[in-house]
Amino acid sequence: MESRLEKIKSLKVSELGKACGEIREEIIDAVSKNGGHLASNLGVVEASVALHYVFDSPKDKIIFDVGHQCYAHKIITGREKELSTLRRLGGLSGFTSRQESVHDIFNEGHSGASISAALGIAEANRLKGDDSYTIAVIGDGSVTNGMVYEALNNCNNNQLRLIIVINDNEMSISKNVGGMHKHFSKIRTSKKYFGFKHGVEKGLVVIPLIGKPLARFVRWIKNGFKRIFVKKNIFEDLGLRYIGPVDGNNVAKMVAVLTEAKRKRGPVVVHMTTKKGYGYGPAQKNPELYHATGPFDKKKGKSPSEEESFSSVMGKHLCQLGKKDEKICAVTAAMGEGTGLCYFQRELPKRFFDVGIAEEHAITFSAGLSQSGMKPVVSLYSTFAQRVYDQVLHDVAIQRLPFTLLLDRAGLVPQDGITHQGIFDVSIFSSIPDIRIYSPEKYEELRWCLDTAIEDNYLDIIRYPKGKELCYEPALNMLRDNEDLFEYSENIDTCKGVIITYGRVTKVASDTIKALKEQNIGLIKLIRICPINLEKIKELTKNASWAYLLEESFENGCVMEKIGCGLENKKIKLHAVKGFMEHGTTEELYNLCGFNVEAITKNIKNL
Amino acid sequence: MESRLEKIKSLKVSELGKACGEIREEIIDAVSKNGGHLASNLGVVEASVALHYVFDSPKDKIIFDVGHQCYAHKIITGREKELSTLRRLGGLSGFTSRQESVHDIFNEGHSGASISAALGIAEANRLKGDDSYTIAVIGDGSVTNGMVYEALNNCNNNQLRLIIVINDNEMSISKNVGGMHKHFSKIRTSKKYFGFKHGVEKGLVVIPLIGKPLARFVRWIKNGFKRIFVKKNIFEDLGLRYIGPVDGNNVAKMVAVLTEAKRKRGPVVVHMTTKKGYGYGPAQKNPELYHATGPFDKKKGKSPSEEESFSSVMGKHLCQLGKKDEKICAVTAAMGEGTGLCYFQRELPKRFFDVGIAEEHAITFSAGLSQSGMKPVVSLYSTFAQRVYDQVLHDVAIQRLPFTLLLDRAGLVPQDGITHQGIFDVSIFSSIPDIRIYSPEKYEELRWCLDTAIEDNYLDIIRYPKGKELCYEPALNMLRDNEDLFEYSENIDTCKGVIITYGRVTKVASDTIKALKEQNIGLIKLIRICPINLEKIKELTKNASWAYLLEESFENGCVMEKIGCGLENKKIKLHAVKGFMEHGTTEELYNLCGFNVEAITKNIKNL
Repeated sequence: MESRLEKIKSLKVSELGKACGEIREEIIDAVSKNGGHLASNLGVVEASVALHYVFDSPKDKIIFDVGHQCYAHKIITGREKELSTLRRLGGLSGFTSRQESVHDIFNEGHSGASISAALGIAEANRLKGDDSYTIAVIGDGSVTNGMVYEALNNCNNNQLRLIIVINDNEMSISKNVGGMHKHFSKIRTSKKYFGFKHGVEKGLVVIPLIGKPLARFVRWIKNGFKRIFVKKNIFEDLGLRYIGPVDGNNVAKMVAVLTEAKRKRGPVVVHMTTKKGYGYGPAQKNPELYHATGPFDKKKGKSPSEEESFSSVMGKHLCQLGKKDEKICAVTAAMGEGTGLCYFQRELPKRFFDVGIAEEHAITFSAGLSQSGMKPVVSLYSTFAQRVYDQVLHDVAIQRLPFTLLLDRAGLVPQDGITHQGIFDVSIFSSIPDIRIYSPEKYEELRWCLDTAIEDNYLDIIRYPKGKELCYEPALNMLRDNEDLFEYSENIDTCKGVIITYGRVTKVASDTIKALKEQNIGLIKLIRICPINLEKIKELTKNASWAYLLEESFENGCVMEKIGCGLENKKIKLHAVKGFMEHGTTEELYNLCGFNVEAITKNIKNL
Repeated sequence: MESRLEKIKSLKVSELGKACGEIREEIIDAVSKNGGHLASNLGVVEASVALHYVFDSPKDKIIFDVGHQCYAHKIITGREKELSTLRRLGGLSGFTSRQESVHDIFNEGHSGASISAALGIAEANRLKGDDSYTIAVIGDGSVTNGMVYEALNNCNNNQLRLIIVINDNEMSISKNVGGMHKHFSKIRTSKKYFGFKHGVEKGLVVIPLIGKPLARFVRWIKNGFKRIFVKKNIFEDLGLRYIGPVDGNNVAKMVAVLTEAKRKRGPVVVHMTTKKGYGYGPAQKNPELYHATGPFDKKKGKSPSEEESFSSVMGKHLCQLGKKDEKICAVTAAMGEGTGLCYFQRELPKRFFDVGIAEEHAITFSAGLSQSGMKPVVSLYSTFAQRVYDQVLHDVAIQRLPFTLLLDRAGLVPQDGITHQGIFDVSIFSSIPDIRIYSPEKYEELRWCLDTAIEDNYLDIIRYPKGKELCYEPALNMLRDNEDLFEYSENIDTCKGVIITYGRVTKVASDTIKALKEQNIGLIKLIRICPINLEKIKELTKNASWAYLLEESFENGCVMEKIGCGLENKKIKLHAVKGFMEHGTTEELYNLCGFNVEAITKNIKNL
């Protein structure tokens, strides 16, 4: 049977539009049922079809930056039937995934990596004498990321078969920002320059020749224009060939331009303009709302969510604090909506900075704000904050600057999968001297942590999960140590065993203790997880014969390792995340990690 | 008494040259005696004097990117007497240091952070209504770094008093690379463009007017040229004002240009060209040799060092392997000499890639090489590798790509101080699932680790210190476990206590055991530090009543924490680095950390 890919490649160019329409319908269907990234995927249907039409995947390698715009690519490359399993446990990943298909070259999830990867593949092909093409497809939002520039700066080998398709939809995830964004606008509106050029040449033919000097002058001007018009934008400044801009939602034009790019020697930039959400009215009108979405009614469209979450509670509280203290600045990297900083943005726009998808700059820029006496609060997703370890250490911690870094989506993250889990931030950031890290379990604690972090003179990190606080009846009466910020069950020094934990997973510990009530088990819940006061914990647990250390974070370098190393004369059971985690619901991921009453009860019985 | 700064500010412009000469002599004197960064510092003497002449530090803030070109600045701002203590324990830092002077705004040490920091300070000043200037001084080498681009992309607020001085010496630390470098060359040679422009305007005056159409045409051309010539380089593409290029070794010109920059509204880029090593013949002739240097004879100059070190052993061995295996590629981020990859570069240039100071790109680019079947070996300094945690995790580990990352200058690093210590790599990289980390003690082990890493299908890190292996008589007979790669003393199961350690500091452990011979202490030395086989270590140490865990790395998240958490029924003493470390010799730093026989003996007696 002919595959979808073969079928598309056998069509005439004039027939591709219909194929695009079908694919678009399948995407809208799947996302409205399952949730997922919609607007970005609808924008690149035509480009995806054109890419597969002009190039031969998997011999030619197509890499999607971030990878959240690969649904059309997945449909074309034989995964249309599984699209209903998108982002579900055991189903299709919402991003490109090497494990899933030979057509998925790189597991992308973080912005700006595609050109570096593509350049590496193209160089390898050159070394091996392989004549296949490597194509990176990257949004103009990602182009605000420094890695992109580092890669472009290295694209200077004319023997490479490398094509960079810039998908210019004037958006990153939020509205795009910065000088580069303005530069794109200028390029887009520069068509009259092309017109001008041709006009000049035509004009010159009819101007009467008046002697040699003018002829030289004319030649001089012509060469001047050639030099100038050929070298007219940032890509050409960096030595790359440039074609564009082209309407990326016109599949025939895309086929023509990509065919032209294929013919050129050396790395080529193809600049296409597309519309996020193209072909689905509600998404085209409000692409931010349909960037990443849950299931919705296809006919009615979706409404903005007003559900409370750690993000919205944080965002609103920060906005309140900002109104009272003019020194507070809010900084984000293209995640104003996702992090809840949008509340601050709306009410205090002068002290709100969206720096684009430029996490490194966000930190060091904010270090500068702090150096000058402001109180910066930077909010990043935990997984993207993996990019800023050096900046936090080198530009903030070494300088002993007061600083607040919020890590949203910390811990296990549903649906997005392996590239988006927030399970590494504890290990890396706790290895920075003198840092303070908080991992609140409840909104009330979250607000309190923010108050503390902004007012103290430390480098503070507050990390919290995606979604809501888990309300529950407390299993036991807890006391609080306000100096070292932890809670402990009031009977703790008489307990035969103790569970030590923090954050959202505390609910599971608490439920377990409730279930094992007769067994006299104590609970310690940390709110500040770094530094911890080990001496106090040792004192509280001195009569316990075992300690169960439970942590929703990767096991190596986790906080509980430090506690386990410090506790003496008792059995230790460390229970943390054991490795990379794929996509699924939070509950499914919890079960995979054994974060449930049954598994923990079993482990405790073995102690 | 008038300070040096006041004195310079009171001079006439024509007298500044002499002041520069004096400062230059002081720098050559100090570095020839103490060692330090020479070539970069000599290049910016005039610029430093001009900056302090035109601006008012510390009200105006001058930030030096990387900070290794700040010696003239230190002399001018009252630290000339202490210059003889440069890079010595308790003496002046070789970099800018907030702890040292109000004129040092930021502790710089890693490339590319200055513009982000300066932008933050300038934004804070704007918010506060403070009219002072912020100036970032950054080399063209640093401009290959992505953070610089992220920052430039955000410099689009015309109310900022921000000046970016680009020091274009055509070098990063090695010879500069990339499209941006070529772009700089083009700007430098574009003076004829300015000439051309003026020529055109003059020409137009004398051309006889032939009717309205030609007049319009001429006006059209003039405006065209204006648009084009004003927007002619990458900085202007990004919306910044640009002045230059100017001879940065001409102090009068620098004063004029900086005065002009001060007058302009909004962020301004000043592009100066300088000569690395300017004013000291040998350094100007061979700036790489004088980038970072030990003491040398001022009259004779220095000769290239041929001393063996971990770096040179690694570099030579990799070159040998590369000759036998065409798939091996060597990748560095402007550190060909420092890492010893220069051997590979010389003999196998086609498979050598220097990507500029772009560590993030180096990793993801190499992931692309690996994806296509090559065997990339990336070599970075441990401290700079702090920038690539996300790329190693996201672009290599998640994709399960075979990969070798070498971390040079791991552990305590002499002289360079707080921004250059290699004491965090273990904590962060061991938190990546399925990674293998090696920390050899000897050259022989280093070669063996490299063979293994290149041939296996894992993500491998090999880390090793700056300088030489410490040869010593083994204190005791050691056996090796070749599967899990560790060594242990043959009598270990009868020992009452055991020291567990790895890498260079093993010598101290071994010497301690020798000194305490009668006490029957065993030794375990890890070569592969991640993953470790805890069960084997537990078995070997089951009869010991205490374990002394010794590690030349920051204590939080270190390997010994994991071991300490796993060992049961014994006293545990964890002895690792307790916080940030300033500059001093390796021996001095070891003593500060208690890494000596006396301190460890005392600790053992307390167990």
